[in-house]
Amino acid sequence: MKRILVIGIGTGNPEHMTVQAIAALKQADAVFVLDKGSEKSDLTDLRKAIVARFTEGDGPRWVEAESPKRDSAAPYEAGVDDWHGAKARAFARMIRDEMKEGETAALLVWGDPSLYDSTLRILERIARDEGIAFEHEVIPGISSLHALAAAHKIPLNEIGEPVLITTGRKLAERFPDTQTIVVMLDGGAGLDALEGRDAEIWWGAYLGSEDEVLAAGPVRHVLPEIKRIRAEMRDAKGWIMDIYLIRQKRS
Amino acid sequence: MKRILVIGIGTGNPEHMTVQAIAALKQADAVFVLDKGSEKSDLTDLRKAIVARFTEGDGPRWVEAESPKRDSAAPYEAGVDDWHGAKARAFARMIRDEMKEGETAALLVWGDPSLYDSTLRILERIARDEGIAFEHEVIPGISSLHALAAAHKIPLNEIGEPVLITTGRKLAERFPDTQTIVVMLDGGAGLDALEGRDAEIWWGAYLGSEDEVLAAGPVRHVLPEIKRIRAEMRDAKGWIMDIYLIRQKRS
Repeated sequence: MKRILVIGIGTGNPEHMTVQAIAALKQADAVFVLDKGSEKSDLTDLRKAIVARFTEGDGPRWVEAESPKRDSAAPYEAGVDDWHGAKARAFARMIRDEMKEGETAALLVWGDPSLYDSTLRILERIARDEGIAFEHEVIPGISSLHALAAAHKIPLNEIGEPVLITTGRKLAERFPDTQTIVVMLDGGAGLDALEGRDAEIWWGAYLGSEDEVLAAGPVRHVLPEIKRIRAEMRDAKGWIMDIYLIRQKRS
Repeated sequence: MKRILVIGIGTGNPEHMTVQAIAALKQADAVFVLDKGSEKSDLTDLRKAIVARFTEGDGPRWVEAESPKRDSAAPYEAGVDDWHGAKARAFARMIRDEMKEGETAALLVWGDPSLYDSTLRILERIARDEGIAFEHEVIPGISSLHALAAAHKIPLNEIGEPVLITTGRKLAERFPDTQTIVVMLDGGAGLDALEGRDAEIWWGAYLGSEDEVLAAGPVRHVLPEIKRIRAEMRDAKGWIMDIYLIRQKRS
């Protein structure tokens, strides 16, 4: 049997790696990576640095393919479905051609594999559509949710109260009533939807990495600054990973 | 200055410890623990085993006090407020009497310090009410949220959809419309509120530990089994830590 380990590697600080994740990495014969192209090569470099730091000798083989792109012109659901299909075919090729029976391959996921990451869905799809047999395990990681809260030294929830985790897209579609909201995957629409709201925000980008940047305060004071930093850093680096917590005033 | 490190230690698997958490533990001169009494002594033993595994020599001093109890007869908010006050006074005594200027003390938090844990609120209260100066840092940990998803090998969210994290108490008060709900801190009222609902559940207790137990399926099929296992294990061990994800049918 071929074995796939889906490993949460944290948000960019190699010290987010758990003892369990390090042990999993040491078992891997290969690491499979879909690289999103040159603008994200520093993310690939960071993955390589993590593998090098926590494995000995030559470490696992590095098997890389170019990541398919999501068609952002297509309607969201159809676009995501096509994109997952293309990623499934890319990973299926690797599992078929780049590992032997009895071998173990690692897929490294930023943060934790359970929040807004397609890896587990894609593996399910490979098993279903590509007729490839493999077993898999999931190793949890430090998600940006907790890296954000730790960086700001705050609890996510108010005492006994719920927390809604959502996307920038959903926030823009209809602003939730929930007092506490964490927004991940915001292309910008979510921050736009915040404009003029009576709320506090705790924002962070590149959490845990050397480029970590934080901002917090009443939305009306800090939102312009957050948008400015975000645009500047995205331009400078070619990509951004950020997340924020909003606390709306109790109505 | 006295320094407090609030360290997320994961859900009971010592291998959830991150490289960052281990480094923090090694810096600690003392570990401060509020023990909840004999029925939870295996949790104290597990904490001690984690400290012993990841520190050298005698390791940090172990400073323990009995944890104040929440008055469950009092109204919830007032009960929690009194309880936090009593915990703040207990930790304040430790910070005042059990560590010297320039020393570092660690507070070990199950899972991650940002979800339904009172430690950060209590530190804020100590700084405000007890007139004790200290600096503090927060080290994120593997939360039960991600340990649950990893154990079941599932993503928490549906594609691009929100996830509501809430408590058993809130679920029982008013069942949320959100399709995906994660319930933490359920004394039992949340599972009761699930009765008869058209939903799937993924449940886990003692996640990551030797006693880990999982159940999943349609609520109408697995809810009685979950309640039975829960009652039996709670009786046998004297305590339970569990969490579950619910996916309601799309309406």
